[in-house]
Amino acid sequence: MSHSQLKMSSSCSKSSLHLSIPYNYLIQIMFGVTILGNNSALPTYGRHPTAQVVTLKDQLLLIDCGEGTQLQLSRYKVRIGKINYIFISHLHGDHYFGLIGLLSSFGLLNRKSELTIICPPELPAIIQIQLDAARINLSYPIQYKVMTESGTVVETNHFRMDCFAVSHRISCWGCWIEEKKLLRKINKEQVLAYRIPSSYYPKLQMGADYHSSDGKKIKNEELTLPGTPPRSYAFSSDTLYMPELATRLKGVSLLYHESTYLQDLPDRAKERYHSTTVQAASIASAAGAKHLIIGHFSSKYEDISAFESEAKSIFPSTSLALEGVTYLVK
Amino acid sequence: MSHSQLKMSSSCSKSSLHLSIPYNYLIQIMFGVTILGNNSALPTYGRHPTAQVVTLKDQLLLIDCGEGTQLQLSRYKVRIGKINYIFISHLHGDHYFGLIGLLSSFGLLNRKSELTIICPPELPAIIQIQLDAARINLSYPIQYKVMTESGTVVETNHFRMDCFAVSHRISCWGCWIEEKKLLRKINKEQVLAYRIPSSYYPKLQMGADYHSSDGKKIKNEELTLPGTPPRSYAFSSDTLYMPELATRLKGVSLLYHESTYLQDLPDRAKERYHSTTVQAASIASAAGAKHLIIGHFSSKYEDISAFESEAKSIFPSTSLALEGVTYLVK
Repeated sequence: MSHSQLKMSSSCSKSSLHLSIPYNYLIQIMFGVTILGNNSALPTYGRHPTAQVVTLKDQLLLIDCGEGTQLQLSRYKVRIGKINYIFISHLHGDHYFGLIGLLSSFGLLNRKSELTIICPPELPAIIQIQLDAARINLSYPIQYKVMTESGTVVETNHFRMDCFAVSHRISCWGCWIEEKKLLRKINKEQVLAYRIPSSYYPKLQMGADYHSSDGKKIKNEELTLPGTPPRSYAFSSDTLYMPELATRLKGVSLLYHESTYLQDLPDRAKERYHSTTVQAASIASAAGAKHLIIGHFSSKYEDISAFESEAKSIFPSTSLALEGVTYLVK
Repeated sequence: MSHSQLKMSSSCSKSSLHLSIPYNYLIQIMFGVTILGNNSALPTYGRHPTAQVVTLKDQLLLIDCGEGTQLQLSRYKVRIGKINYIFISHLHGDHYFGLIGLLSSFGLLNRKSELTIICPPELPAIIQIQLDAARINLSYPIQYKVMTESGTVVETNHFRMDCFAVSHRISCWGCWIEEKKLLRKINKEQVLAYRIPSSYYPKLQMGADYHSSDGKKIKNEELTLPGTPPRSYAFSSDTLYMPELATRLKGVSLLYHESTYLQDLPDRAKERYHSTTVQAASIASAAGAKHLIIGHFSSKYEDISAFESEAKSIFPSTSLALEGVTYLVK
């Protein structure tokens, strides 16, 4: 396990190989992705259908929500009241059958804050028909943002989420989550040398030049250093191998690319609009990703260790998506 | 644990107090009810929402299907291909949100045999809108039997299922499953004394009188003994305390009556159209049930042991609905 992976505490943990971390600690980590389910289609071998929770400062974003996600959220002690955004990539059941249960539970817990759901256009009617049948009026508002074209779907002071089309049997979307560009760093030696008043520092951090009272101007670049480049997480959901996706994913910090099959089944992968280990790794390599997570393993595989070795042969900085593990975005 | 309870084998079993039985053995048991989920509304404390599987000879009937039921079926090694009937009592999520996932999985497993779903009228549209969104044509036919009035909903050579209305916040139905009347037993002494040819025994078992070749008639009652009376299982789903329900449940072998609350919360139970321990036990007592299972425990209770003691004070032959445990219908 690399230092960028943290094992969440779990009452059902079978292994003590991983460091067990209480969820509250994760809030400090600021940007990480916790895997709640890593399997495709049929839940098998104790693996759950697709879901991840992204921790970004004090925000939690849920990415897909297969059946049983609320149980996984509970198992890994995720503070579900902090989830204000849910992204549903497409309407195959292994990516969203757990959503109606989670929305109902939010209601039972008397949630009040608005929830934004980014989803395919058919989802709102699917949710509403079930709420109507149960005669439920949720205790909180839902704002749906339906995806019909690639582009920005959420923008806050802290992050931006874009969606992009991928190629699957039905309409399917990936997402790109990027933290907002961080402030420039004060160059301490220079601000002291120029005797800049400290009250001016916040403006400098935001990129302003300095104008002194006697009309003198000092360029921002002389007084500050570049801030940390913004980190990004991309999830390309279920997709056929799309070499052109690498352009869209250029420079991503952490990429989750599906790898439903091992490299010996490219034809089956193509036929079912999925990808193999080496295809996922090739995308990560061409995109210049810092790290790759592969998951969405086919139910035909009980042992998934070959996925890691195959992908690493192309892109060494690869991890398997393991349930309960948090991968840091660095 | 009484002798009528068998603990199913489970990879997650924490206790070795119960006898662990492979599922295949249960096929021999002929009539039993295995609890897959025993909680109400919110899944908590490792308890799952409502679902039971009834084993009746070589048939499996699924009664309700809360979220995660397919995972529970897998955990307890239930042969899901044998499930040909699914009863959905009402459209609160804790009783059916797992259905669409199970139906999809049947399709992925290439099921061919017809599935009968007994359900409220709104369910077929809820299933269809989700299949349409995923562009899925299931590999097997579904026959829906929607419930609009009490009466027989399924009848086969081996059993009959009736539904009956209960009183809940939305339209809600209980079910009564009864095996077909068994054959009369051959009275060995008498058939030997009368020298009845053994080829005639099957007719005698079915109640026919004997007619000898010389025109002599011997009444069936002289040659046979009564067969075992038919056994029955009733599940009254989510319901307000309805004393009149005891009449409908008269003589049931095994009754599953919800007990969402302990006896100190009758007002809350009434307000939410649920029942308490003593109310459930009173129904079992008035109905003359042989045994009572109580379940659908509120998420407010972590420790459910008081449920058993309270119910037993009214109706001693009571068990808690424990997940993974099979209760025999005797």
